[in-house]
Amino acid sequence: MKIRQLFDYDTWTYTYLLWDETSKEAAIIDSVKEQVERDMQHIKELGLNLKYALETHIHADHITAAGPIRERTGAKIVVHKNSESQCADILAVEGDEFKLGEQTIKVLHTPGHTNNDITYLIDGAAFTGDTLLVRDCGRTDFQLGSNEAMYHSLTEKLFKLAEDTMVFPAHDYKGFSQSTIGEEKQFNNRVGNAKSYQDFSTIMDNLNLPRPKRIDIAVPGNMQCGLKDNPTVQ
Amino acid sequence: MKIRQLFDYDTWTYTYLLWDETSKEAAIIDSVKEQVERDMQHIKELGLNLKYALETHIHADHITAAGPIRERTGAKIVVHKNSESQCADILAVEGDEFKLGEQTIKVLHTPGHTNNDITYLIDGAAFTGDTLLVRDCGRTDFQLGSNEAMYHSLTEKLFKLAEDTMVFPAHDYKGFSQSTIGEEKQFNNRVGNAKSYQDFSTIMDNLNLPRPKRIDIAVPGNMQCGLKDNPTVQ
Repeated sequence: MKIRQLFDYDTWTYTYLLWDETSKEAAIIDSVKEQVERDMQHIKELGLNLKYALETHIHADHITAAGPIRERTGAKIVVHKNSESQCADILAVEGDEFKLGEQTIKVLHTPGHTNNDITYLIDGAAFTGDTLLVRDCGRTDFQLGSNEAMYHSLTEKLFKLAEDTMVFPAHDYKGFSQSTIGEEKQFNNRVGNAKSYQDFSTIMDNLNLPRPKRIDIAVPGNMQCGLKDNPTVQ
Repeated sequence: MKIRQLFDYDTWTYTYLLWDETSKEAAIIDSVKEQVERDMQHIKELGLNLKYALETHIHADHITAAGPIRERTGAKIVVHKNSESQCADILAVEGDEFKLGEQTIKVLHTPGHTNNDITYLIDGAAFTGDTLLVRDCGRTDFQLGSNEAMYHSLTEKLFKLAEDTMVFPAHDYKGFSQSTIGEEKQFNNRVGNAKSYQDFSTIMDNLNLPRPKRIDIAVPGNMQCGLKDNPTVQ
């Protein structure tokens, strides 16, 4: 499996393009609406047959390009069932699998940032969305986020993966691009080194983060798969 | 060989940390002074023994962390001989090799952006500095840059590498993180698809780029390996 990491500077979002080398069947994870021309050109140049537009969750910070990409490629849009998306093709649940040639993408439900977070597992790599970030994790204070669910997803699901599993997050704010499960078990600032739930929860309850600037546009926009230019709050 | 890509948002610079898994011997390519604490912590967490601080060239857009990193790790600073650096430990020329455990880093002289550009070749990956960028190349209009040298470096040196060689640039301005030699031979906007020297040179002569904001600080700062807080023009 080939992995190409792409970055949107305005929203600090990592988009991933994955493909099976033999069949050229491909998926895009967490596309960004403003980058659709860049990504479509890249898909064309690489000669890829895009089968899936995968979302790790309903994002609050950017609008997905999944809808426009589906219109141009026929790719199926995948989001977690809990999102209650009306525009996705597949409402996925834990254990679902998608094929890219001989390669398999597996769905792990890792809620906590929202109630609909998916980690996609592919060939020794975990695309962890806003659940596990490098030395960090997603916030839990909106979109049905939950400290308990986050702690469980991190420690009981993601940290049970093989230590050399590569971690590819949906965002980074310090310039990190990837990590491994082994590193995060040891060094994650919020939950590494076997930090207790109580300590984790205290950290999360005291982050005092501002409300995401684009949440009132991004969430309804993503509930429409990025297909409306001016989504309104639903 | 393990490769970790790191990013400095202010100067759009990619720093690379490379290490041999067995021996943990490591090198850092194109470090950024403002990121030294992040990078030193990462080196410590990964348990690496930093042997080399490699520079692809004397940068005009940021000040290196090579000097401060040498002070804290004993790593040897490598820059090309043409830089005439007084602070580096090794003034490298084409064909030089450096060992990280059983792995070998090879020096390819790829001038054009400056007269002292090195591409470091390691285990199927090329760290191309500001010579070859994704779909692009470095500018040639200062620091003894040259359209002729750049065209030669791109078409006669880098494009002669194996097509599946991974390309890791020193910068990107569109959110790309890597490419391959095969892709760039085909799709590079300035020199791909067998573009002639004349066409290439016309593009380069009409870029009309502004003078780099930090050049008067960065070049002398890098001639001092980032060791002086307030470098002056020499």
